[in-house]
Amino acid sequence: MGSKMTDATAAPAFPKDHVAAPEALRFPDPLVPVADPPRTRSAAEEARALVQVGTMASLSTLSDDGHPWGSVVTYGEMPDGAPVILVSTLAEHGRNLVRDARASIVVQQVEQFGDPLDNGRVTLAGTMRAPLDDAERAIAQAAVEAVSPAAAMYGGFGDFSLWILDIDRVRWVGGFGRMDSVTADDYASAELDPVAPSAGYAIRHLNDDHADALLDIARGITGYTDATEATCTRADRYGIDLTVKTPRGTAYTRAGFAEPCTEPGGLRAATVELTKRARA
Amino acid sequence: MGSKMTDATAAPAFPKDHVAAPEALRFPDPLVPVADPPRTRSAAEEARALVQVGTMASLSTLSDDGHPWGSVVTYGEMPDGAPVILVSTLAEHGRNLVRDARASIVVQQVEQFGDPLDNGRVTLAGTMRAPLDDAERAIAQAAVEAVSPAAAMYGGFGDFSLWILDIDRVRWVGGFGRMDSVTADDYASAELDPVAPSAGYAIRHLNDDHADALLDIARGITGYTDATEATCTRADRYGIDLTVKTPRGTAYTRAGFAEPCTEPGGLRAATVELTKRARA
Repeated sequence: MGSKMTDATAAPAFPKDHVAAPEALRFPDPLVPVADPPRTRSAAEEARALVQVGTMASLSTLSDDGHPWGSVVTYGEMPDGAPVILVSTLAEHGRNLVRDARASIVVQQVEQFGDPLDNGRVTLAGTMRAPLDDAERAIAQAAVEAVSPAAAMYGGFGDFSLWILDIDRVRWVGGFGRMDSVTADDYASAELDPVAPSAGYAIRHLNDDHADALLDIARGITGYTDATEATCTRADRYGIDLTVKTPRGTAYTRAGFAEPCTEPGGLRAATVELTKRARA
Repeated sequence: MGSKMTDATAAPAFPKDHVAAPEALRFPDPLVPVADPPRTRSAAEEARALVQVGTMASLSTLSDDGHPWGSVVTYGEMPDGAPVILVSTLAEHGRNLVRDARASIVVQQVEQFGDPLDNGRVTLAGTMRAPLDDAERAIAQAAVEAVSPAAAMYGGFGDFSLWILDIDRVRWVGGFGRMDSVTADDYASAELDPVAPSAGYAIRHLNDDHADALLDIARGITGYTDATEATCTRADRYGIDLTVKTPRGTAYTRAGFAEPCTEPGGLRAATVELTKRARA
């Protein structure tokens, strides 16, 4: 794996966009003009929401021969969104970190809807840091215990250590055509969405019990007046995303709330208001 | 990251076992002697079952600066259990593979029960291979389409390629105290468990609707005659694993079936037989 290989492939001619006919990714438009597109969370806010709601991640480290090594960890969240993990040097990833602390942590959306690749995930790349000072260790230990009951016991074992990821790069993928890179500063300072923890439940409830309301929202709010079916695939404090079936094909759209949710339970009132407006 | 750093940490003194008082990991024993321990799947069979049932994985590759990079992929399964993925060079992991094909794929248990760290996951490490010859590509394309409807469309895009993982190392972790390494040959030749795809449903059904049967099994089969509650955490063709509450603490045990299941729907009859035997 020396410089020869690197030189030979130093600048492969990668495409800048999908290599496909334009019509391959064309979807039906609304039949009725829609006002300004609804507000969405920023990529940094999307990334923070994924990390906030998740508890399991995959950790990528480097084996002793430089091979990338993937493993599964639970993680807690520091106040600035940095993941903290409790790992043993009995495990390969623990020994890897002691040798070379470069790592990535990937968090996937906990409750998934529709096509698995049309759900959120985020890669946080950086350098894991240990040992922590006393003040930071207390916060970190509480954070890992909040997600894994076993962490309380293992934290007392001498082969376990707490490591915090100092983040260099953030790459968010929200699904098909929704992705962006985020700076470490923007990630750390991103506003938390109060409804992120309850969004999965709300989406299931809307799809299971309020299909009629979703269809009316698709017809009355998003301009798909010929919609025959609508499914909610995402919900955040600014609105909901819908997959809409029409005789012209399947469309992907969004309905915005009148006001952003400001409370953890805010999705209920916001979707009720949206439904009333759709039916007005 | 040159030789200096490697030399300085060439042989860290990692512990060979948990650094903790022995009583930290002591659990209550059965009150009644139990016959031979029930048969379990081999580590290779456990690893194959995880890959067989899963559809989403995390992929670890190497960024251009050698940093480990994690991402999320859907994968199909080749007949020998090797994962196959469809990736675009528009994505960082796709460009990484073209530069350096060393990779790991981590699959987690799809339906999880109890403590998140007491569920299965497997790391398959090796080298991704592309392009495939025509015969292999047809099998690989069908495998990825079986798990992601979108793969049918993306497979026709010029920026996407199919890559198969040629496996060098397999590391299975089944939960607390259950883990082993597996050779690539043992993994490829491991027998598939016919009940693996239905195990998640069966476990939920047993816990939701047959708590009384599980308690009788804990008392009558596994020797925990003082059990007050039993929860099923795993099921395979040879038996079920139980978490058992007793006045002496929580125990982790297993009840074996009279005969291994040989059919996809075999868990129902096997657990009915187990319950009858427990109550006899």
